[in-house]
Amino acid sequence: MSADAGDLTVGELSEGRILRRILNVLGPSSALVGPGDDAAVIAAPGGSVVATTDTLVHGPDFRLAWSSGFDLGWKAAAVNLADIAAMGARPTALLVALALPNSTRVSFVEEFAAGLRGACDALAPGCAVEGGDLTVSDTLTIAVTALGSLDGRAPVLRSGARVGEVVAVAGELGHAASGLAILFERFTDADGHPLPLDVPSGRDGQAVLAQLRPSPPIALGTTAAVRGASAMIDVSDGLALDAARMADASGVSIDIHSRLLPDDVRTALTGGEDHALLATFPAELVPDSGFRPIGRVIARTGDPVLLDGRPFGGRTGWDPYRDWDSVTG
Amino acid sequence: MSADAGDLTVGELSEGRILRRILNVLGPSSALVGPGDDAAVIAAPGGSVVATTDTLVHGPDFRLAWSSGFDLGWKAAAVNLADIAAMGARPTALLVALALPNSTRVSFVEEFAAGLRGACDALAPGCAVEGGDLTVSDTLTIAVTALGSLDGRAPVLRSGARVGEVVAVAGELGHAASGLAILFERFTDADGHPLPLDVPSGRDGQAVLAQLRPSPPIALGTTAAVRGASAMIDVSDGLALDAARMADASGVSIDIHSRLLPDDVRTALTGGEDHALLATFPAELVPDSGFRPIGRVIARTGDPVLLDGRPFGGRTGWDPYRDWDSVTG
Repeated sequence: MSADAGDLTVGELSEGRILRRILNVLGPSSALVGPGDDAAVIAAPGGSVVATTDTLVHGPDFRLAWSSGFDLGWKAAAVNLADIAAMGARPTALLVALALPNSTRVSFVEEFAAGLRGACDALAPGCAVEGGDLTVSDTLTIAVTALGSLDGRAPVLRSGARVGEVVAVAGELGHAASGLAILFERFTDADGHPLPLDVPSGRDGQAVLAQLRPSPPIALGTTAAVRGASAMIDVSDGLALDAARMADASGVSIDIHSRLLPDDVRTALTGGEDHALLATFPAELVPDSGFRPIGRVIARTGDPVLLDGRPFGGRTGWDPYRDWDSVTG
Repeated sequence: MSADAGDLTVGELSEGRILRRILNVLGPSSALVGPGDDAAVIAAPGGSVVATTDTLVHGPDFRLAWSSGFDLGWKAAAVNLADIAAMGARPTALLVALALPNSTRVSFVEEFAAGLRGACDALAPGCAVEGGDLTVSDTLTIAVTALGSLDGRAPVLRSGARVGEVVAVAGELGHAASGLAILFERFTDADGHPLPLDVPSGRDGQAVLAQLRPSPPIALGTTAAVRGASAMIDVSDGLALDAARMADASGVSIDIHSRLLPDDVRTALTGGEDHALLATFPAELVPDSGFRPIGRVIARTGDPVLLDGRPFGGRTGWDPYRDWDSVTG
């Protein structure tokens, strides 16, 4: 007897396969840009609105021993702002659905709100929380929706990369993953439970902060769009995996030059949660600052991503179901 | 020693008080309509976008013994569409953040998607799911954001009711609460755990369906706006409580006439989750169909809501923290 795939559990199927099944049921999109890019673009009289949603769940996505309320508000805002930026759009508003255990301190909720506001003020001035919902749950869950405006421009999709163009990145590569490694190595007990965090000094501390309170280059999203980026994506799951998504969507391959990456090439390629912006530009249009070249768009080969001309055989990306366990703390 | 309110837990403070503290931290809104109405209205080049978010959490908001995946998708869409309609707007898109236990059947997720699509097709043709997020959680959580368009009109706020106007309602009053009462009375065991549902026939079955799969009059939101409604609100927490919110926002009182309500006046006044639309109109502008008069806007008295000219002394509304317990099943 072969099992009907409909009887499988969510834990037995990859996120991508579950999404495909959902999209089959939902049917065709009527939006300007429907599911499949960093954000949707929905027609509105006189223009459009860019919209995206991303959720942080206690356990799979964070530890309360490591993240303060402020950190969580900041990160929940930042990761959504990055998806708006990756469309070449300017963030205009956040809506925040917060599901909280009854035992949550009100002071924690206030710190969380301060973190949301802090991230908006620092990363996307003019954007603020304009709506939300508060519910009770056994599991602290933060679902943020970000809206943005293209100000009359076309969205920068994943699918626009053309052979011969320069591949460039803005923001950090591998910092957030290094920070997570430090947290797991130094701030868990023998049973894997999180210990209270004492942020280290120097580089390690910067990596930990990149994980807990990321500062993606939001304003550079519109910079890239205005400058003429042909494709762009938010690097949330690691450079190699997100570059492969861009390559697949564009029908090209992307050759990354290791000498243009940070010293820890492997972490730069596979570490997730940095929310850097990966974009492609015609060579003469690469911005003078903010973005730095890391490779070239080449004709499609058997592999979507190459490293110095050879198939990149490493781990292809970050997997939230592997890199974070579900221990709550 | 008096406790600092910041040290209280979420369970010790009302939702309204927690929201006020959050809003204090978030600071002033820069939106056309910020927090406090059914939805936010955010400026966009050439117009605006209406946006709202609402969450369903397993335990506080639903039982899996009673709600199918289809029911949950339908309800999650419908309650958000109703908030868009209550601004006088036309729903254009949903974004759906779904947090699922790993043990969830994929077939359940597909039914959920079908419910989302079914509600959009039936209640708001042209609106579809255009984005989303899938995460793992111990607690099944559904956070939906709905977007809408005013098509150039001004939003219909809670605050526009004027003395002398007619108070009218579209949709059912008390049905969903009657359905919930039937579920708790007939489909729980002696320990309060839910039993599998066999939907009754006749009126009781309709009430149960109003609870599990509500069909708010979404299209009548734009009808009311075009016709000239001065104020409108989604009746999600019971007529008395939502009328009081409208009265408070408008600086008036609302006198409801019991003879214009369903026979079970008390349930009509206090039952939540119907997602009817409550609106006020100058007398000559009440629509001929869809909306039915239930009272008048009068000068502000000590009570925001009166019943036949007397202060309504009953339970003033539906409280999700009381009417649903947190038993999971």
